[in-house]
Amino acid sequence: MADGAGKGLECQKIMDGKASNGNGTKNEIPSCCLKAKSSDPEFEAKCHSIVVSGWFSPSQTCSGKSGKNVYFNNPMWPGEAHSIEVEKILYKEKSLYQEVLVFESSTYGKVLVLDGIVQLTEKDECAYQEMIAHLPLCSIKSPKNVLVVGGGDGGVLREISRHSSVEHIDICEIDKMVIDVSKKYFPELAVGFEDPRVNLHVGDAIEFLRSTPEGKYDAIIVDSSDPVGPAQELVEKPFFETIAKALRPAGVLCNMAESMWLHTHLIEDMISICRETFKGSVRYAWASVPTYPSGVIGFLLCSTAGPPVDFVNPINPIEKLEGADKHGRELRFYNSEMHSAAFVLPTFLRREVRLLRD
Amino acid sequence: MADGAGKGLECQKIMDGKASNGNGTKNEIPSCCLKAKSSDPEFEAKCHSIVVSGWFSPSQTCSGKSGKNVYFNNPMWPGEAHSIEVEKILYKEKSLYQEVLVFESSTYGKVLVLDGIVQLTEKDECAYQEMIAHLPLCSIKSPKNVLVVGGGDGGVLREISRHSSVEHIDICEIDKMVIDVSKKYFPELAVGFEDPRVNLHVGDAIEFLRSTPEGKYDAIIVDSSDPVGPAQELVEKPFFETIAKALRPAGVLCNMAESMWLHTHLIEDMISICRETFKGSVRYAWASVPTYPSGVIGFLLCSTAGPPVDFVNPINPIEKLEGADKHGRELRFYNSEMHSAAFVLPTFLRREVRLLRD
Repeated sequence: MADGAGKGLECQKIMDGKASNGNGTKNEIPSCCLKAKSSDPEFEAKCHSIVVSGWFSPSQTCSGKSGKNVYFNNPMWPGEAHSIEVEKILYKEKSLYQEVLVFESSTYGKVLVLDGIVQLTEKDECAYQEMIAHLPLCSIKSPKNVLVVGGGDGGVLREISRHSSVEHIDICEIDKMVIDVSKKYFPELAVGFEDPRVNLHVGDAIEFLRSTPEGKYDAIIVDSSDPVGPAQELVEKPFFETIAKALRPAGVLCNMAESMWLHTHLIEDMISICRETFKGSVRYAWASVPTYPSGVIGFLLCSTAGPPVDFVNPINPIEKLEGADKHGRELRFYNSEMHSAAFVLPTFLRREVRLLRD
Repeated sequence: MADGAGKGLECQKIMDGKASNGNGTKNEIPSCCLKAKSSDPEFEAKCHSIVVSGWFSPSQTCSGKSGKNVYFNNPMWPGEAHSIEVEKILYKEKSLYQEVLVFESSTYGKVLVLDGIVQLTEKDECAYQEMIAHLPLCSIKSPKNVLVVGGGDGGVLREISRHSSVEHIDICEIDKMVIDVSKKYFPELAVGFEDPRVNLHVGDAIEFLRSTPEGKYDAIIVDSSDPVGPAQELVEKPFFETIAKALRPAGVLCNMAESMWLHTHLIEDMISICRETFKGSVRYAWASVPTYPSGVIGFLLCSTAGPPVDFVNPINPIEKLEGADKHGRELRFYNSEMHSAAFVLPTFLRREVRLLRD
C-alpha cells in the first residue's frame, strides 16, 4: 500500500497543534461551569459534582419539557464535547480514588462516568468490551490464564467467559466502588463476576503484578480509564515491563490505546515503549465506539518473545468456539472479520505514527 | 461467520426505541435554546442563527477566557449532541435553500454547517471525501464519466481528480451559496472545481437527471446532506430509479448512508429500495468521521445490471494509479486495505438489517 512520503499532514496537525494551546490546559474548566446557576438547589448540587474533572456548562439549565439535563465531558478532548441527555441521576459518590456517577440517559441507556469521563453506556459498551477481550484471546490457541487490569464493571470478564479453554481469570481493580456500582446498575456487565473462574483482587495492579510469578498468564487485558487520575501509571514503561514479565513466552497483552484522531503522540509513545519491552509483535487496532472521544477507541496488542503471534488473522476464531457466540448473550459487535479489519489503519495514522510503518 | 439467530439486540433496540419517543420529534428545539440570553446583543444574534435547525443551548454563554462559544447540533441525533468550540464565526447567511454557516473552531479547523448540521471540518473531511469518491471509482475499471449530486464544497471533485481515466465530471449542486462559500473559506476543497474536466450545473439534481441520456455515467456519487431540508427527495425510490437509468450497465452508485449506530431503519429502507432498483450488487460500507453523528458515516454502493461489480476488492486500486496518491495533496485516509475493511460490519448491524445478511 502506498504510504506517502511521510510529509506533514494538515489533517492531523490541525488537531495536534491546536489541541495543546487552543484551549488552555487539558483539565481547565471554565469558571462559569464551576458555578452553574439554577433556581433549583438540587440541580446546582448535581452540576458541581458532574464537573469535577469534566467539561461542563450551564446548559444543564437548558432542559426540555421533562426537565432533562444535558451532560458534558471530556478533559482528554479539548475544543469539543460530547453531551448526553440525562434522564435521571441514579448514583453519585466519591470513592477513595475518583468520582463515580451513574445516570439514565435518553438514548444510550445507563451511563457510567468516572471523574467526569464516560466509561461506558449500555448502548455501545458491546463494541469496546468485545473487542478488548477477543482481539487478544482469539489471537492465541487455548488461552488458560488471563489477567484483567481495571475492568471493574465486569464487561471484559463477561466476554472472557465465552472462552471455555480459560481455566483461571484474575481481575485486579483498584476501586471497589466501581464493582459495587456495576453490580447494582449494570447487571449485564457485572454478570462477568459470577463466572467461578474469576478471582477478584481489589487493589493496585502494579503491586499485584510485582507479586505475580513470572510467566503466569497467557493473556493480560488492561481495561483502564484514561491516563489521568488513578490510571496515570498505566501508560509508563515500568508498568509494561511488569506486564511483560507476568506473561508466558508468546503471551499477549491488549491495552486500551486512545483515539487515532486525537492522541497520535500518546499512541506513538505507547508503541515506542512496547516495542522496547515486548520482543514479539506490537500492533495497533481500533473500533467504533460512539460515546468515546472522536467516536473511536484504539487497542495496543503486544506479544512477548517466542513463536510470533499473528494478531491480524485470529488463530482461535470465536465462530469455531462452541457456544462462545451465545454464552450469556449474543455477540453484538465482534466477529472474525471485524477482528482483522480493526488492524487496517487510515493513511494519516500510518504516516504520523512512524512506528506503525515498520 | 456466525451471525446469531437474528434475535432481538438490546444494544440496538435501546437506541431505536428511545430515539423515536424519548426526546420528542427529531427537530424539536428546547424553547430556552431559541431564546438564548446574553448581555451581548451580537452574541444573541449569533445564537439565533445557529439554532435555526440545530440543537443548541445557552451554554454558548459558557465561554472561556477568550470568549469562545460552544456550538451544538444535530437534529438527526436525539438525546445527545456533539459540540465544537467556536473561535470565530466567519460567515452566516441564508441561501434560497438553507442557512449556511462557517466558523473557525479551536481544534477542528474551519467548519461548514448547513441548517445547523455539521457538513465538514478541515480536520476530518479527508475521511468522508476520500471514501465516498474512491469506494465507487476504485471498484470499476477506468471510470470515464462521473456525476456528483450535491458536493458543492468541491471535496469530492478534488478526490475524483486523482483518477486520470476520468474524462468528464458533471456536478449538480442546488445551492450556489455553498459553492461560493467553499471557494472563499475552504480552498483545499474548492480546488476540485478547478479541474477542467468539471462541468458545474447549479440546480435540482432530479431535474438534471431527467434530461440526462440513459446510460451516460460510469459512476454517480451522491454527496447529499441529511434527508431533511433540500435533500429530502434524495432517499426516495423515484430518485434512485433516475440514478439507475443514468448509469451504464454495471455502472456504480455511491450514496451517503447515515450512521450504523443511529439510523438502522433508514439504512434498511435505503437498501430495500436499492435492491429493487439496482439489479447488480448492493453493499453497505462505513468509515470513521469524528464530527458526524456517532462518529461514523455509511455509504451505500450499488451497481446496475451487467457483469457483477465486486465492491469489496477494488479492481482499480488507487495505489496503482500513477500520481493518484499525491494529486493535489496526499491521500490522508483512504487506501485499498481501508476500502475492503469498510465493508466489514459489526454483528449487530448484520443482525438488525435483514437485507445485509442475504
